[in-house]
Amino acid sequence: MKRIDVLDGQGWVVLEDSYGDDLAIVNAARQSFSKRSATMGPAESGLIHFLMRNRHGTPFEMVDFRFNIKAPIFVAREWQRHRIASYNEMSGRYVELEEEFYLPPLAAVREASGKPGAYQFETMDGETAALVRERMRRDYEGSWITYQSLLELGVAKEVARMVLPVGIMTQFTFKTNLRSLFNFISLRSAPNALLEIREYAGAIEELARDVAPIAFKAFESSNRVAP
Amino acid sequence: MKRIDVLDGQGWVVLEDSYGDDLAIVNAARQSFSKRSATMGPAESGLIHFLMRNRHGTPFEMVDFRFNIKAPIFVAREWQRHRIASYNEMSGRYVELEEEFYLPPLAAVREASGKPGAYQFETMDGETAALVRERMRRDYEGSWITYQSLLELGVAKEVARMVLPVGIMTQFTFKTNLRSLFNFISLRSAPNALLEIREYAGAIEELARDVAPIAFKAFESSNRVAP
Amino acid sequence: MKRIDVLDGQGWVVLEDSYGDDLAIVNAARQSFSKRSATMGPAESGLIHFLMRNRHGTPFEMVDFRFNIKAPIFVAREWQRHRIASYNEMSGRYVELEEEFYLPPLAAVREASGKPGAYQFETMDGETAALVRERMRRDYEGSWITYQSLLELGVAKEVARMVLPVGIMTQFTFKTNLRSLFNFISLRSAPNALLEIREYAGAIEELARDVAPIAFKAFESSNRVAP
Amino acid sequence: MKRIDVLDGQGWVVLEDSYGDDLAIVNAARQSFSKRSATMGPAESGLIHFLMRNRHGTPFEMVDFRFNIKAPIFVAREWQRHRIASYNEMSGRYVELEEEFYLPPLAAVREASGKPGAYQFETMDGETAALVRERMRRDYEGSWITYQSLLELGVAKEVARMVLPVGIMTQFTFKTNLRSLFNFISLRSAPNALLEIREYAGAIEELARDVAPIAFKAFESSNRVAP
Repeated sequence: MKRIDVLDGQGWVVLEDSYGDDLAIVNAARQSFSKRSATMGPAESGLIHFLMRNRHGTPFEMVDFRFNIKAPIFVAREWQRHRIASYNEMSGRYVELEEEFYLPPLAAVREASGKPGAYQFETMDGETAALVRERMRRDYEGSWITYQSLLELGVAKEVARMVLPVGIMTQFTFKTNLRSLFNFISLRSAPNALLEIREYAGAIEELARDVAPIAFKAFESSNRVAP
Repeated sequence: MKRIDVLDGQGWVVLEDSYGDDLAIVNAARQSFSKRSATMGPAESGLIHFLMRNRHGTPFEMVDFRFNIKAPIFVAREWQRHRIASYNEMSGRYVELEEEFYLPPLAAVREASGKPGAYQFETMDGETAALVRERMRRDYEGSWITYQSLLELGVAKEVARMVLPVGIMTQFTFKTNLRSLFNFISLRSAPNALLEIREYAGAIEELARDVAPIAFKAFESSNRVAP
Repeated sequence: MKRIDVLDGQGWVVLEDSYGDDLAIVNAARQSFSKRSATMGPAESGLIHFLMRNRHGTPFEMVDFRFNIKAPIFVAREWQRHRIASYNEMSGRYVELEEEFYLPPLAAVREASGKPGAYQFETMDGETAALVRERMRRDYEGSWITYQSLLELGVAKEVARMVLPVGIMTQFTFKTNLRSLFNFISLRSAPNALLEIREYAGAIEELARDVAPIAFKAFESSNRVAP
Repeated sequence: MKRIDVLDGQGWVVLEDSYGDDLAIVNAARQSFSKRSATMGPAESGLIHFLMRNRHGTPFEMVDFRFNIKAPIFVAREWQRHRIASYNEMSGRYVELEEEFYLPPLAAVREASGKPGAYQFETMDGETAALVRERMRRDYEGSWITYQSLLELGVAKEVARMVLPVGIMTQFTFKTNLRSLFNFISLRSAPNALLEIREYAGAIEELARDVAPIAFKAFESSNRVAP
C-alpha cells in the first residue's frame, strides 16, 4: 500500500488496492474486434491514444482502484459529489471524532479577487496569514471544548458533533474506475478548483499513473479531458 | 410549489416540479406487453402492486421530482450519499453564508444507549437539554464571529468558512426518480435513521405521495422496501 | 406529444413528456450563489454558455425527457448501452412480435472501406442495392414463417423468437436527463456513428431542442461535446 | 482464469480477474467506526450478516469482478439492462460474426402456460422438440447463407448482419461490483427468469462465491435479496 501525504502532512491518500492495467483497457477495446493482446507494444499504446482521442470511454472502466483518504470535511463534501464511485466514511454518529483540524499552511492563507467561477487567488502577507491561522486555531479549540463538554453531559455523539467545524478531519474509502477517476482528476486538478482538493487530485494521479501509465499519457495528450 | 417546514421551522422541503404519475408507471410496464392504459382503474392499480411485490423497479423510474431543500450540513452529507440523483448546492466558496444554525428543539436533545447500529435514544431531562442548547448556541455564535472576523481580514470565503460548524444551514436542489426516492425514504425514515433526516424523509414522502398515490400504497404494502 | 418519423417511416421518435427548461438549468446553477432568475435574459443565456464551456455538467441534469422509440433491435442494442437513463421495452417473452423488419432504403445500402473505427461508407450501385434488399426481404420472410410455425407447434414465445433477426422492429420507453442526452447526441450523431442511429439522434435533438433552446445553442458552440 | 461452460457447452462464463474479498467488505464497514480487522473471524462474519440483513449495501461494492461472457444475443440483451456495470462487446459493425447459433437442448424446448409474468413452463414431447430444433437449425442456416451472400456482394458488415437472428452467439466483457452482482443473481436466477440466463446466473454465482464466501452465505440467509 502506497501512501502520499498532503496538506502539509495533515491529510493523506493511500492506494489500498487496484486491478486492471493498460493491457486490460486494450483487451476490453479489442473485444469489439474479437482480438486479444498478450503484451503492451506500439500498437497497443496507439490504440489507447485512439480511444482517448475519440472519447471511447468504456474500456477505461476496466481498471479499478480502492483508496483510503484522510481529508477535511469541506474537501470530502466536494469529493463525494462524484457519483460513479463507492464510498464508506467514518461516522460522527458512531465514533467520537479526534481532535484534528485542518489549519492551512501560511502559503495557503489566501485572498480572492475577481468574479465567482473565475477567482484569482493570492497568498496574504505573512502577518495577516499568521493572524488568520491563530484565529482559526482558537476557534477550532473552542469547538472542540464544547464538543467534549456536550459529550460529558451525556448527549448523543450525533448531537454533540453538530458544533464541529467543516475543517475537522474525516476518513473514507473511495473506490472507483479509471474513467471516473480521469473525470475527478480533470475537474479537481484544474486551476479554478479548490486549492486543498487539488493536492488530493495530484496525489491520486501520481498513485494511479503507476497502474496504467500509457492511459495517463493519453490523458495528457488529450488536454486532460476525461474520455 | 408546495412547501413543508421541518426541524421546528428551521429547514424545509419544497416540491418545485415533477412529471409522470401512476399512469406513467403503468404504461412503462405495459410497454413490455405492447399495451397502454388511458386511465387508472383496478387492473392498473393491481399491476403497480404486482410490480412492487416482484421488485420490477424500472417502471417506477418514470416519475421524476425536483425538490429544493434547506437543511444542516450534517443532514446534507448523509443525503448526498444517494448517488442516483442530481444535486446543486449553495457553495461557501462563492457566497457568504448566512447566520443560520440548527439548534435542536428540547425534545430532540437526546442521549444514546446500546451498540452502534442499534442505538436506543431518549430525550434528556429538560434542564440538561436546555444547557446543551445554550452551549451549542454559544459555540455557533463564536464560530460566526470568527467567520466574520476572518472575512474582514480579507481572507477568501473558502478559507474563512472552514471554522463554520456542520450544524450551519445549507440549501440544495435535489432531483431524482421515484424508484431512487423510495430507496431514500425506505432508509431515511427507518427507526435507526438520524432523527433529523427522518423529518425530511417524512416531508418528501408526503409531497411525493400526491404525485403517485397508488405507487405509495404499494410501497406500504411491501413493507416500505424499495423495488 | 410530438412525433418524428425516421428510417423512411419504418421507425419513430415520440417525445411523450418532459420537465425543466433553460431557466431550470440557470436556477440550479444559481443555487451555488443563492440566487434565482425569474426569466431568461442575456445574463442567463451567458451563464448557460459558461456552464457548457467549463464542463459544469450537473445543472443540465435538471431537464428530463421521456421518449417512446420504435427502432430495429440492432439500433436498440447500441442505444441501451447508455446507462444514465431509464428503459422499458417490449418483450418477446410476453408478446408475439409483429411482422415489421427494417429494410434499408436504396440510399442506405452501403459498402465500407478503410479500417474499423475509421470506415468510409459509400452507397452501392442501384442494381446491387436492389439485390441486397431483395435478399434481406426474403430472409426476413423466411424467419417470420419459421417463427409462426414454431408458435403453431406450441413452443413458448421466448424460444420461437430466437430465430428472429436483429433487423426486426422493437419499441421502448427512454427517459433521461439533458446532460446524458447531450452525451447520446454527441456520440450517436457523429460522422462515424451507425447511419441508422444517426437518424434517431437527429430526431431526438430536434425534439429536445424546443425544450431547452439556449442549452442546445451552447452545445453547438462547444463543438457538440457533452458537458 | 476459471471458466464454466453453460447452455450445453454453447456458451461460457470466465472469471478473468477480481479484487477485494470478505475482509475488504468488513473493513469498508468498519471505516464508519474507525476500526480495521486483519483477518476474518466470527465477529467479522457476524458483521457481514448484519450488513446484509439491514440492507447496508455500500460495503459490498468494495469487491469487483471482471468476467468474459459468451452468450446468445437475446441473453446479452437482458443482461446489459443492468446499468451498474461496465461492458465491452464484440461488434457486428467491425467483425464478421461466426457461425455459432444457440440451439436449445431437447430438454429446453418448452411450452408456456399461464399469464405473462407468471408463466409455467413444461418441456415439450421429444418428437415436437426435435422438430422445433430442426426448424430452428434450418432457419439459422438460411440466415447464415444470406449473411455470407450479402458480404460477397460487398455490402458493409453492419448492413449484412441485420438478417442475423438474436440466437447468434456474441461475446462481451462484464465488470461489476458485488452489490450489483447480487442484484443480477437475485433477479436472473429467480424461478420466473429466462431459462437460459438462469444458467449464466448460476455460473456467475459459483465463480463469485469463491471470492467472498461469507458474503454469499449472508445473501442466502437473506432470501437472496440484494442489499
